[in-house]
Amino acid sequence: MDGSHWLSMHPLVEKLTENGHDVVVVIPESSLTMGGSETFTVQTYPVPYTSQEITANFQKLSREHFSLPSHFPWIAIEMLDSMMVVFNMFYKSSCKNVLQNETLIEYLKKGKFDAMLSDPLFPCGEIIAEFLSIPSVVFTSGAPFAIEQEAAQSPGPPSYVPKLFTTFTDHMTFIQRLQNVFVSLLFDFVFCHMLYSPYTRMASEFLKRDVTAVDLFSRASIWLLRYDFVFEFARPTMPNMVFIGGINCVNRKPLAQVIIVCINSSGEHGFVVFSLGSMVSEIPMDKAMDIAEAFRSIPQTVIWRYTGKVPSNLGSNTHLVKWLPQNDLLAHPKARAFITHAGSHGIYEGICNAVPMVMLPLFGDQMDNAKRIESRGAGVTLNVLDMTPEDLINALDSVINKPSYKENIQRLSALHLDRPIHPLDLAVHWVEFVMRHKGAPHLRPAAHDLNWIQYHSLDVFAFLLAVLVTTFFISFKCCTYTCRRCCGRKSRPKSKSKKE
Amino acid sequence: MDGSHWLSMHPLVEKLTENGHDVVVVIPESSLTMGGSETFTVQTYPVPYTSQEITANFQKLSREHFSLPSHFPWIAIEMLDSMMVVFNMFYKSSCKNVLQNETLIEYLKKGKFDAMLSDPLFPCGEIIAEFLSIPSVVFTSGAPFAIEQEAAQSPGPPSYVPKLFTTFTDHMTFIQRLQNVFVSLLFDFVFCHMLYSPYTRMASEFLKRDVTAVDLFSRASIWLLRYDFVFEFARPTMPNMVFIGGINCVNRKPLAQVIIVCINSSGEHGFVVFSLGSMVSEIPMDKAMDIAEAFRSIPQTVIWRYTGKVPSNLGSNTHLVKWLPQNDLLAHPKARAFITHAGSHGIYEGICNAVPMVMLPLFGDQMDNAKRIESRGAGVTLNVLDMTPEDLINALDSVINKPSYKENIQRLSALHLDRPIHPLDLAVHWVEFVMRHKGAPHLRPAAHDLNWIQYHSLDVFAFLLAVLVTTFFISFKCCTYTCRRCCGRKSRPKSKSKKE
Repeated sequence: MDGSHWLSMHPLVEKLTENGHDVVVVIPESSLTMGGSETFTVQTYPVPYTSQEITANFQKLSREHFSLPSHFPWIAIEMLDSMMVVFNMFYKSSCKNVLQNETLIEYLKKGKFDAMLSDPLFPCGEIIAEFLSIPSVVFTSGAPFAIEQEAAQSPGPPSYVPKLFTTFTDHMTFIQRLQNVFVSLLFDFVFCHMLYSPYTRMASEFLKRDVTAVDLFSRASIWLLRYDFVFEFARPTMPNMVFIGGINCVNRKPLAQVIIVCINSSGEHGFVVFSLGSMVSEIPMDKAMDIAEAFRSIPQTVIWRYTGKVPSNLGSNTHLVKWLPQNDLLAHPKARAFITHAGSHGIYEGICNAVPMVMLPLFGDQMDNAKRIESRGAGVTLNVLDMTPEDLINALDSVINKPSYKENIQRLSALHLDRPIHPLDLAVHWVEFVMRHKGAPHLRPAAHDLNWIQYHSLDVFAFLLAVLVTTFFISFKCCTYTCRRCCGRKSRPKSKSKKE
Repeated sequence: MDGSHWLSMHPLVEKLTENGHDVVVVIPESSLTMGGSETFTVQTYPVPYTSQEITANFQKLSREHFSLPSHFPWIAIEMLDSMMVVFNMFYKSSCKNVLQNETLIEYLKKGKFDAMLSDPLFPCGEIIAEFLSIPSVVFTSGAPFAIEQEAAQSPGPPSYVPKLFTTFTDHMTFIQRLQNVFVSLLFDFVFCHMLYSPYTRMASEFLKRDVTAVDLFSRASIWLLRYDFVFEFARPTMPNMVFIGGINCVNRKPLAQVIIVCINSSGEHGFVVFSLGSMVSEIPMDKAMDIAEAFRSIPQTVIWRYTGKVPSNLGSNTHLVKWLPQNDLLAHPKARAFITHAGSHGIYEGICNAVPMVMLPLFGDQMDNAKRIESRGAGVTLNVLDMTPEDLINALDSVINKPSYKENIQRLSALHLDRPIHPLDLAVHWVEFVMRHKGAPHLRPAAHDLNWIQYHSLDVFAFLLAVLVTTFFISFKCCTYTCRRCCGRKSRPKSKSKKE
């Protein structure tokens, strides 16, 4: 899987090669972030699009997002739509190109691999793992429509587990719970099917038997989930779920000289880091002007990742860069605030480094992520479409100058970093575990062998109800019969006396 | 908590003192396994019974168990009864003596502790933790009636999570699922209340407000569960549950010379370890004679922990010892089989050391434990009441000479020991975590703030049903009204024409 997904899986792959494993990474010939490596083998396959086309498509998508409606449920519908566009645009076509590539499949077959590491946003990995009968480890921050929960048989009561796109917290009002149940039913029975149906068709053809997306994912031995409960809301989990949130906060490198100069110029006020993620490096000019206007008015230096046309009102305290070492910058003691699109990677980097956030969520899970950080008092969410320069100034002023934001992010950071083992080592352990033991069958719940009715004991309750109704009915009949007999006996003499 | 429970908590307490913490262990003046220490402070409180009385009571209980009925549900009822006897006999009276001991409570108040480490079989710990407002860490292999699951809000679908005393596996027939649902309802609504009601009364009086057992336990910050899924069946868990199964397989010490002589005399056939746990060191003579008879016929040396009268038919290959270093013995390469009462400590030592087991479960969770190991093909369960010498000989022959038993226990052992961090270090980490952060509030699910109806979204479904019924009713009324109007119009001219 391309983009930021690969960026967080990459250190795990590197570490596995360091540990002496032969790793083959299968990537499309055109991609955003995936490329060659000196440590692992790269196996490419041709695809009918270029890297430029991917970039252009994401730019188009982000431009479209700047004209989105801004409230639930419309925003959810729009986000769903855009997710399906991305999903279909690249990955469906990309997966087809993998499965139809006989040379590649033959190569993979001969490889006799011990495990498959895959991302559920590109379900092709699971199809091939099933085809090659090798155990799989799924690496994700949560698959679309939380299919990982269904596939792992992990319960998620909609009464306190908010669903994607709702932006609810774990404490919901009655109306929110109603919406959450509704969204949950929609996801399970409509959207999940819509999103994955092209894959299941492809998989069924390729494997020569009918499979569903849940079938495919439920074979995963281990779920490496980029979760940490300082950020996620506490909820039921399963024994084969391993939590590696914050795995991306690694690989600190010294900052470049040009960046150090920027930072040093910031004085006691420190600096602000601003990035909308790897997918969105430019925004409409009116929005860029608004943002630049806000930055002119704050005493901090701003380092802004932006590749678009320079706004004419850019202040001298604002430095535009084509790319920024986000985690390393946030780790600097002078980092005062982080303006982010609230992608999960950025959020974890904010938490790791205890930098309060101003969040401008755009699409996918970003609205939900922003809501979580906001509900923990560690950041402020702004609607990038509606916000004025004053809104941004006020938000920055709050997170920088109100002590509660810094205290809260420091508390979250302390909880997050206080762990018995680093998430990267944990991930490596479980991949190697699956390789050594050919899976993790002891962690597989027996729920996989039950149908929906059995799982919820509906047959048992129906049987108990039937027994109860039958008992009641027989008792009732017996009673009425006995009563009739008794009353009959009593009433007969009466009628006799009447006759007399 | 006394007995084997303390034996497995003890290394954790020792390790905490090693790490520089001041630990105060509160113990009754009379106990089976708890005593003074050079590393931690011991604070005793008087109780109205002696250690001899405890031993005598357990001996009595075990003698009674040798006349138990041997099938579900009778065995479950008997076990429940015996559990309540133990529970009431010592711990209720012991807890009363803690709570009424003003000097002790004052001492604990002044201590300003950072955390309470407690065992749910002795719920007094939670009452004091609540009274002193300190976070608690609960250490258990599963509390009676799985109250830890309810208190931690961990779902346990009865369709594949077998309940205590049922001896079912995670794959149940319809009839077993029916029984499991029934037992589950009984536990939740009857027995759990029966067992804990003396404590909740005591707690409510002491805390001067009404509390339930679930209220008390649900305040636990971390559940240190002596679980490992090579032994437990995979099921939903919660983020504040930490799995430390096998924590007792530590502290290897060199074997005593007398034991080494025994082992060396065993030759190529190796030896068998036999213990019925810390509570049962003698058994009725007829049973002891049967067992001794079986041992005479096997080529292995037997080391038997037994304090009763020596059976007259004891073979020369059988050595009686008053106490045995079980884990160290099982770790010896010549250990061929382990005859155990299937207490969870023994089971984990069998798994750690990959020694196949013959299990003679007596009470508590032992029947269930035995069933689990049997279902994994790593041991044979015998009913100690019914078994003949031949049964024991056959069972030993199977686990020693049929390769599948050794292979299965070796597989379980390999899975169990392949972990990223030792359970003892993990336990220490989480106790220290709770001390450092004054609990683990981020791991507490919002489910605690919902009532039963809200949790299961019953109000939401009732509302949806009401809307559906109302809509249907209104539509129906509209339709019938419209129909009547239409039919009326059509029929009126007819009646007119009739008149005409």
